[in-house]
Amino acid sequence: MELEQLVNAVMKNVFVELEASGRHVHVTEEQAQRLFGHGLTPDRPLSQPGQFAAKERVAVMGPKGRFENVAVLGPVREEAQVEISVTDGRTLGITPPVRLSGDVANTPGVTLEGPCGQVKLSQGVMAARRHIHMHPADAAKMGLRDKQQVRLQTYTRRPVIFQDVTVRVHPDYQTAVHLDYDEANACGFQKGDLGRILP
Amino acid sequence: MELEQLVNAVMKNVFVELEASGRHVHVTEEQAQRLFGHGLTPDRPLSQPGQFAAKERVAVMGPKGRFENVAVLGPVREEAQVEISVTDGRTLGITPPVRLSGDVANTPGVTLEGPCGQVKLSQGVMAARRHIHMHPADAAKMGLRDKQQVRLQTYTRRPVIFQDVTVRVHPDYQTAVHLDYDEANACGFQKGDLGRILP
Repeated sequence: MELEQLVNAVMKNVFVELEASGRHVHVTEEQAQRLFGHGLTPDRPLSQPGQFAAKERVAVMGPKGRFENVAVLGPVREEAQVEISVTDGRTLGITPPVRLSGDVANTPGVTLEGPCGQVKLSQGVMAARRHIHMHPADAAKMGLRDKQQVRLQTYTRRPVIFQDVTVRVHPDYQTAVHLDYDEANACGFQKGDLGRILP
Repeated sequence: MELEQLVNAVMKNVFVELEASGRHVHVTEEQAQRLFGHGLTPDRPLSQPGQFAAKERVAVMGPKGRFENVAVLGPVREEAQVEISVTDGRTLGITPPVRLSGDVANTPGVTLEGPCGQVKLSQGVMAARRHIHMHPADAAKMGLRDKQQVRLQTYTRRPVIFQDVTVRVHPDYQTAVHLDYDEANACGFQKGDLGRILP
Protein backbone atom coordinates (compact mmCIF):
# COMPACT_ATOMS: atom_id res chain seq x y z
CA MET A 1 0.00 0.00 0.00
CA GLU A 2 1.29 3.43 -0.92
CA LEU A 3 1.98 5.80 1.97
CA GLU A 4 -0.68 8.23 0.80
CA GLN A 5 -3.31 5.48 0.64
CA LEU A 6 -2.28 4.28 4.10
CA VAL A 7 -2.52 7.80 5.54
CA ASN A 8 -5.92 8.27 3.92
CA ALA A 9 -7.16 4.95 5.30
CA VAL A 10 -6.03 5.85 8.83
CA MET A 11 -7.50 9.35 8.52
CA LYS A 12 -10.89 7.97 7.49
CA ASN A 13 -10.99 5.68 10.51
CA VAL A 14 -10.06 8.30 13.07
CA PHE A 15 -11.06 11.70 11.75
CA VAL A 16 -14.32 13.17 10.55
CA GLU A 17 -14.62 16.11 8.20
CA LEU A 18 -16.06 19.32 9.65
CA GLU A 19 -18.56 21.42 7.74
CA ALA A 20 -20.11 24.78 8.66
CA SER A 21 -23.76 25.39 7.76
CA GLY A 22 -24.78 28.97 7.09
CA ARG A 23 -28.30 30.20 7.75
CA HIS A 24 -30.82 28.49 5.47
CA VAL A 25 -34.45 27.65 4.96
CA HIS A 26 -36.42 24.49 4.11
CA VAL A 27 -39.90 24.98 2.65
CA THR A 28 -42.86 22.85 1.57
CA GLU A 29 -43.88 22.50 -2.08
CA GLU A 30 -46.93 24.69 -1.47
CA GLN A 31 -44.78 27.41 0.20
CA ALA A 32 -42.31 27.30 -2.72
CA GLN A 33 -45.22 27.96 -5.09
CA ARG A 34 -46.36 30.96 -3.04
CA LEU A 35 -42.84 32.41 -2.68
CA PHE A 36 -41.48 31.76 -6.18
CA GLY A 37 -44.46 30.88 -8.40
CA HIS A 38 -42.90 27.43 -9.00
CA GLY A 39 -41.08 24.61 -7.21
CA LEU A 40 -37.39 24.64 -6.26
CA THR A 41 -34.70 24.65 -8.95
CA PRO A 42 -31.51 22.76 -8.01
CA ASP A 43 -28.43 24.99 -8.28
CA ARG A 44 -25.65 22.88 -6.75
CA PRO A 45 -25.52 19.59 -4.80
CA LEU A 46 -24.70 19.58 -1.07
CA SER A 47 -22.40 17.09 0.66
CA GLN A 48 -25.38 14.97 1.75
CA PRO A 49 -26.52 12.89 -1.26
CA GLY A 50 -29.76 14.13 -2.87
CA GLN A 51 -29.72 17.45 -1.01
CA PHE A 52 -29.22 20.64 -3.01
CA ALA A 53 -28.98 24.41 -2.71
CA ALA A 54 -31.78 25.93 -4.78
CA LYS A 55 -31.42 28.79 -7.23
CA GLU A 56 -34.29 30.47 -5.35
CA ARG A 57 -33.51 32.65 -2.33
CA VAL A 58 -35.72 34.33 0.28
CA ALA A 59 -35.68 37.20 2.75
CA VAL A 60 -36.17 36.17 6.41
CA MET A 61 -37.95 38.84 8.46
CA GLY A 62 -38.08 38.96 12.28
CA PRO A 63 -39.45 41.62 14.63
CA LYS A 64 -36.09 43.45 14.87
CA GLY A 65 -34.36 42.88 11.54
CA ARG A 66 -34.15 40.90 8.33
CA PHE A 67 -31.70 38.91 6.23
CA GLU A 68 -31.83 39.18 2.45
CA ASN A 69 -30.79 36.49 0.02
CA VAL A 70 -30.97 33.52 2.40
CA ALA A 71 -30.24 30.05 0.94
CA VAL A 72 -33.15 27.67 0.35
CA LEU A 73 -32.24 23.99 0.50
CA GLY A 74 -34.06 21.24 -1.34
CA PRO A 75 -35.78 18.93 -1.86
CA VAL A 76 -38.98 20.41 -0.40
CA ARG A 77 -40.04 19.04 2.99
CA GLU A 78 -43.28 18.18 4.78
CA GLU A 79 -42.74 21.14 7.11
CA ALA A 80 -40.83 24.41 6.88
CA GLN A 81 -37.68 24.94 8.95
CA VAL A 82 -35.45 28.01 9.32
CA GLU A 83 -31.95 27.28 10.64
CA ILE A 84 -30.09 30.29 12.03
CA SER A 85 -27.30 30.87 14.53
CA VAL A 86 -27.93 32.45 17.94
CA THR A 87 -26.02 35.48 16.59
CA ASP A 88 -28.46 35.68 13.65
CA GLY A 89 -31.30 35.48 16.18
CA ARG A 90 -30.10 38.70 17.83
CA THR A 91 -30.30 40.48 14.47
CA LEU A 92 -33.81 39.16 13.78
CA GLY A 93 -35.07 39.66 17.34
CA ILE A 94 -35.81 35.94 17.79
CA THR A 95 -34.23 33.53 20.29
CA PRO A 96 -33.82 30.24 18.41
CA PRO A 97 -33.98 27.12 20.59
CA VAL A 98 -31.20 24.59 19.93
CA ARG A 99 -32.91 21.64 18.24
CA LEU A 100 -32.24 18.65 16.04
CA SER A 101 -33.49 19.14 12.49
CA GLY A 102 -37.15 18.17 12.20
CA ASP A 103 -38.00 18.88 15.85
CA VAL A 104 -39.99 22.06 15.18
CA ALA A 105 -42.72 21.75 17.87
CA ASN A 106 -42.96 24.93 19.96
CA THR A 107 -40.23 26.80 18.09
CA PRO A 108 -40.73 30.48 17.16
CA GLY A 109 -42.13 31.61 13.82
CA VAL A 110 -40.84 34.07 11.23
CA THR A 111 -41.91 35.54 7.87
CA LEU A 112 -40.33 34.51 4.54
CA GLU A 113 -40.48 36.74 1.47
CA GLY A 114 -39.88 35.68 -2.12
CA PRO A 115 -40.37 37.45 -5.45
CA CYS A 116 -44.02 36.25 -5.65
CA GLY A 117 -45.21 36.61 -2.08
CA GLN A 118 -44.80 36.15 1.63
CA VAL A 119 -45.23 33.09 3.84
CA LYS A 120 -45.82 33.59 7.55
CA LEU A 121 -44.50 30.59 9.49
CA SER A 122 -46.07 30.00 12.91
CA GLN A 123 -43.05 27.86 13.92
CA GLY A 124 -39.83 26.36 12.55
CA VAL A 125 -36.99 28.68 13.66
CA MET A 126 -34.10 26.87 15.39
CA ALA A 127 -30.35 26.82 15.91
CA ALA A 128 -29.40 23.38 14.62
CA ARG A 129 -28.02 21.18 17.36
CA ARG A 130 -24.51 20.15 16.35
CA HIS A 131 -24.54 16.70 14.84
CA ILE A 132 -22.61 14.15 12.84
CA HIS A 133 -24.14 12.73 9.69
CA MET A 134 -22.85 9.19 9.56
CA HIS A 135 -23.09 6.36 7.09
CA PRO A 136 -23.97 3.03 8.82
CA ALA A 137 -20.63 1.53 7.72
CA ASP A 138 -18.70 4.33 9.46
CA ALA A 139 -20.95 4.12 12.53
CA ALA A 140 -20.32 0.37 12.81
CA LYS A 141 -16.56 0.90 12.37
CA MET A 142 -16.52 3.49 15.16
CA GLY A 143 -18.95 1.57 17.39
CA LEU A 144 -21.56 4.32 17.35
CA ARG A 145 -25.36 4.19 17.08
CA ASP A 146 -28.04 6.62 15.92
CA LYS A 147 -28.89 9.42 18.41
CA GLN A 148 -25.81 8.71 20.55
CA GLN A 149 -24.20 11.79 22.14
CA VAL A 150 -20.44 12.05 21.69
CA ARG A 151 -17.61 14.48 22.36
CA LEU A 152 -15.80 15.87 19.36
CA GLN A 153 -12.26 17.26 19.41
CA THR A 154 -11.69 19.83 16.66
CA TYR A 155 -8.29 20.17 14.97
CA THR A 156 -8.71 23.84 14.23
CA ARG A 157 -7.01 27.15 14.93
CA ARG A 158 -8.98 27.64 18.16
CA PRO A 159 -9.29 24.03 19.33
CA VAL A 160 -12.41 23.01 21.20
CA ILE A 161 -14.04 19.83 22.47
CA PHE A 162 -17.76 20.01 21.67
CA GLN A 163 -19.50 17.85 24.24
CA ASP A 164 -23.05 17.37 23.08
CA VAL A 165 -22.74 16.24 19.50
CA THR A 166 -25.55 13.97 18.27
CA VAL A 167 -24.75 11.08 15.93
CA ARG A 168 -27.33 10.62 13.14
CA VAL A 169 -26.97 7.39 11.20
CA HIS A 170 -28.68 6.85 7.84
CA PRO A 171 -27.73 4.96 4.64
CA ASP A 172 -28.17 8.23 2.67
CA TYR A 173 -25.63 10.09 4.80
CA GLN A 174 -22.06 10.89 3.97
CA THR A 175 -20.05 11.11 7.19
CA ALA A 176 -19.47 14.74 8.21
CA VAL A 177 -19.85 16.96 11.29
CA HIS A 178 -22.27 19.87 10.89
CA LEU A 179 -21.57 23.01 12.93
CA ASP A 180 -23.32 26.37 12.72
CA TYR A 181 -21.32 29.56 12.19
CA ASP A 182 -21.16 30.49 15.88
CA GLU A 183 -19.53 27.12 16.52
CA ALA A 184 -17.37 27.25 13.39
CA ASN A 185 -16.03 30.71 14.28
CA ALA A 186 -15.58 29.85 17.95
CA CYS A 187 -13.25 26.98 16.98
CA GLY A 188 -11.54 28.87 14.14
CA PHE A 189 -12.83 26.46 11.48
CA GLN A 190 -11.38 26.61 7.99
CA LYS A 191 -12.55 24.51 5.04
CA GLY A 192 -10.94 21.06 5.18
CA ASP A 193 -10.46 21.00 8.96
CA LEU A 194 -11.03 17.70 10.74
CA GLY A 195 -12.44 16.53 14.04
CA ARG A 196 -12.06 13.37 16.09
CA ILE A 197 -14.74 11.60 18.10
CA LEU A 198 -13.38 11.04 21.60
CA PRO A 199 -13.84 7.68 23.32
CA MET B 1 -20.81 27.75 58.57
CA GLU B 2 -24.19 28.06 56.90
CA LEU B 3 -24.81 25.75 53.96
CA GLU B 4 -25.08 28.68 51.56
CA GLN B 5 -21.72 30.08 52.69
CA LEU B 6 -20.15 26.65 52.35
CA VAL B 7 -21.54 26.20 48.84
CA ASN B 8 -20.30 29.67 47.87
CA ALA B 9 -16.82 28.95 49.25
CA VAL B 10 -16.58 25.67 47.31
CA MET B 11 -17.93 27.35 44.17
CA LYS B 12 -15.31 30.09 44.34
CA ASN B 13 -12.50 27.55 44.58
CA VAL B 14 -13.63 25.38 41.70
CA PHE B 15 -15.65 27.52 39.33
CA VAL B 16 -14.91 30.71 37.42
CA GLU B 17 -17.57 33.11 36.23
CA LEU B 18 -18.03 33.39 32.44
CA GLU B 19 -18.49 36.75 30.73
CA ALA B 20 -19.21 37.52 27.07
CA SER B 21 -17.58 40.59 25.51
CA GLY B 22 -19.44 42.28 22.68
CA ARG B 23 -17.62 44.17 19.95
CA HIS B 24 -15.86 47.24 21.34
CA VAL B 25 -13.17 49.79 20.72
CA HIS B 26 -10.26 51.21 22.73
CA VAL B 27 -8.91 54.61 21.62
CA THR B 28 -6.09 56.97 22.57
CA GLU B 29 -6.72 60.35 24.22
CA GLU B 30 -5.84 62.11 20.96
CA GLN B 31 -8.24 59.89 18.95
CA ALA B 32 -11.04 60.55 21.49
CA GLN B 33 -10.54 64.28 20.95
CA ARG B 34 -10.81 63.88 17.16
CA LEU B 35 -13.86 61.61 17.34
CA PHE B 36 -15.83 63.33 20.12
CA GLY B 37 -14.27 66.78 20.65
CA HIS B 38 -13.37 65.73 24.22
CA GLY B 39 -12.04 62.81 26.28
CA LEU B 40 -14.08 59.76 27.31
CA THR B 41 -17.00 60.13 29.74
CA PRO B 42 -17.50 57.10 32.05
CA ASP B 43 -21.02 55.71 31.76
CA ARG B 44 -20.89 52.47 33.78
CA PRO B 45 -18.10 50.42 35.40
CA LEU B 46 -17.06 47.05 33.92
CA SER B 47 -16.28 43.92 35.93
CA GLN B 48 -12.53 44.66 35.77
CA PRO B 49 -11.74 47.38 38.38
CA GLY B 50 -11.05 50.84 36.86
CA GLN B 51 -12.41 49.88 33.44
CA PHE B 52 -15.57 51.53 32.17
CA ALA B 53 -17.96 51.71 29.23
CA ALA B 54 -17.94 55.28 27.92
CA LYS B 55 -21.02 57.36 27.11
CA GLU B 56 -19.40 57.97 23.69
CA ARG B 57 -20.00 55.51 20.85
CA VAL B 58 -18.50 55.14 17.38
CA ALA B 59 -19.28 53.66 13.99
CA VAL B 60 -16.77 51.03 12.76
CA MET B 61 -16.41 50.98 8.97
CA GLY B 62 -14.82 48.17 6.97
CA PRO B 63 -14.58 47.63 3.20
CA LYS B 64 -17.83 45.61 3.07
CA GLY B 65 -20.00 46.97 5.88
CA ARG B 66 -20.26 49.01 9.04
CA PHE B 67 -21.50 48.77 12.61
CA GLU B 68 -23.18 51.75 14.22
CA ASN B 69 -23.20 52.56 17.89
CA VAL B 70 -20.21 50.43 18.93
CA ALA B 71 -19.14 50.57 22.61
CA VAL B 72 -15.98 52.49 23.50
CA LEU B 73 -14.21 51.26 26.64
CA GLY B 74 -12.05 53.43 28.89
CA PRO B 75 -9.71 54.56 30.19
CA VAL B 76 -7.93 55.67 27.01
CA ARG B 77 -4.93 53.56 25.96
CA GLU B 78 -1.52 54.11 24.38
CA GLU B 79 -2.76 52.42 21.20
CA ALA B 80 -6.16 51.87 19.61
CA GLN B 81 -7.69 48.39 19.49
CA VAL B 82 -10.91 47.14 17.88
CA GLU B 83 -12.19 43.83 19.25
CA ILE B 84 -14.73 42.04 17.05
CA SER B 85 -15.86 38.46 16.53
CA VAL B 86 -15.01 36.49 13.38
CA THR B 87 -18.72 36.77 12.51
CA ASP B 88 -18.48 40.58 12.79
CA GLY B 89 -15.42 40.43 10.53
CA ARG B 90 -17.54 38.88 7.75
CA THR B 91 -19.94 41.83 7.95
CA LEU B 92 -17.10 44.36 7.84
CA GLY B 93 -15.08 42.51 5.18
CA ILE B 94 -12.09 42.08 7.50
CA THR B 95 -10.55 38.83 8.79
CA PRO B 96 -9.55 39.52 12.38
CA PRO B 97 -6.58 37.49 13.64
CA VAL B 98 -7.08 35.87 17.05
CA ARG B 99 -4.84 37.82 19.44
CA LEU B 100 -4.33 38.63 23.08
CA SER B 101 -5.31 42.20 23.94
CA GLY B 102 -2.40 44.60 23.30
CA ASP B 103 -0.78 42.43 20.60
CA VAL B 104 -1.74 44.66 17.67
CA ALA B 105 1.36 44.30 15.46
CA ASN B 106 0.42 43.31 11.90
CA THR B 107 -3.32 43.30 12.52
CA PRO B 108 -5.70 44.87 9.95
CA GLY B 109 -6.88 48.46 10.14
CA VAL B 110 -10.36 49.98 10.08
CA THR B 111 -12.01 53.43 10.15
CA LEU B 112 -13.80 54.82 13.22
CA GLU B 113 -16.39 57.59 12.97
CA GLY B 114 -17.62 59.80 15.79
CA PRO B 115 -19.81 62.91 15.87
CA CYS B 116 -16.76 65.20 15.37
CA GLY B 117 -14.69 63.28 12.83
CA GLN B 118 -13.11 60.10 11.53
CA VAL B 119 -9.97 58.24 12.62
CA LYS B 120 -8.34 55.86 10.18
CA LEU B 121 -6.51 53.10 12.06
CA SER B 122 -3.69 51.37 10.17
CA GLN B 123 -3.90 48.40 12.59
CA GLY B 124 -5.64 47.20 15.74
CA VAL B 125 -8.48 44.91 14.60
CA MET B 126 -8.54 41.50 16.32
CA ALA B 127 -10.74 38.74 17.67
CA ALA B 128 -9.75 38.61 21.34
CA ARG B 129 -8.13 35.32 22.23
CA ARG B 130 -10.20 33.73 24.98
CA HIS B 131 -8.65 34.40 28.36
CA ILE B 132 -9.16 34.33 32.10
CA HIS B 133 -8.59 37.49 34.08
CA MET B 134 -7.26 36.26 37.39
CA HIS B 135 -6.38 37.88 40.68
CA PRO B 136 -3.00 36.63 42.02
CA ALA B 137 -4.70 35.14 45.09
CA ASP B 138 -6.99 33.02 42.89
CA ALA B 139 -4.09 32.06 40.61
CA ALA B 140 -2.04 30.89 43.63
CA LYS B 141 -5.00 28.94 45.00
CA MET B 142 -5.49 27.18 41.65
CA GLY B 143 -1.74 26.72 41.02
CA LEU B 144 -1.78 28.80 37.83
CA ARG B 145 0.68 31.37 36.49
CA ASP B 146 0.44 34.31 34.08
CA LYS B 147 0.27 33.35 30.37
CA GLN B 148 -0.40 29.66 31.13
CA GLN B 149 -2.73 27.89 28.67
CA VAL B 150 -5.54 25.92 30.26
CA ARG B 151 -8.62 23.97 29.25
CA LEU B 152 -11.95 25.31 30.41
CA GLN B 153 -15.12 23.27 30.81
CA THR B 154 -18.25 25.38 30.44
CA TYR B 155 -21.41 24.56 32.41
CA THR B 156 -23.75 25.96 29.80
CA ARG B 157 -26.65 24.81 27.66
CA ARG B 158 -24.31 23.68 24.85
CA PRO B 159 -21.34 22.47 26.91
CA VAL B 160 -17.87 22.85 25.46
CA ILE B 161 -14.28 22.43 26.57
CA PHE B 162 -12.29 25.41 25.29
CA GLN B 163 -8.71 24.23 24.94
CA ASP B 164 -6.58 27.28 24.41
CA VAL B 165 -7.56 29.66 27.17
CA THR B 166 -4.83 32.03 28.33
CA VAL B 167 -4.52 32.88 32.03
CA ARG B 168 -3.72 36.56 32.68
CA VAL B 169 -2.74 37.35 36.26
CA HIS B 170 -2.70 40.90 37.61
CA PRO B 171 -3.48 42.46 41.00
CA ASP B 172 -6.06 44.73 39.32
CA TYR B 173 -8.02 41.78 37.88
CA GLN B 174 -11.20 40.28 39.18
CA THR B 175 -11.30 36.58 38.27
CA ALA B 176 -13.53 35.96 35.23
CA VAL B 177 -13.38 34.19 31.86
CA HIS B 178 -13.78 36.45 28.81
CA LEU B 179 -15.35 34.92 25.70
CA ASP B 180 -16.40 36.67 22.52
CA TYR B 181 -19.93 36.28 21.18
CA ASP B 182 -19.06 33.51 18.71
CA GLU B 183 -17.76 31.50 21.65
CA ALA B 184 -20.56 32.55 23.99
CA ASN B 185 -23.24 31.54 21.48
CA ALA B 186 -21.45 28.32 20.51
CA CYS B 187 -21.59 27.18 24.16
CA GLY B 188 -25.09 28.55 24.81
CA PHE B 189 -23.84 31.03 27.43
CA GLN B 190 -26.36 32.80 29.63
CA LYS B 191 -25.50 35.47 32.20
CA GLY B 192 -24.35 33.85 35.45
CA ASP B 193 -23.04 30.65 33.83
CA LEU B 194 -19.85 29.15 35.24
CA GLY B 195 -16.79 27.38 33.93
CA ARG B 196 -14.21 25.09 35.49
CA ILE B 197 -10.49 24.99 34.74
CA LEU B 198 -9.57 21.39 34.01
CA PRO B 199 -6.43 19.85 35.54
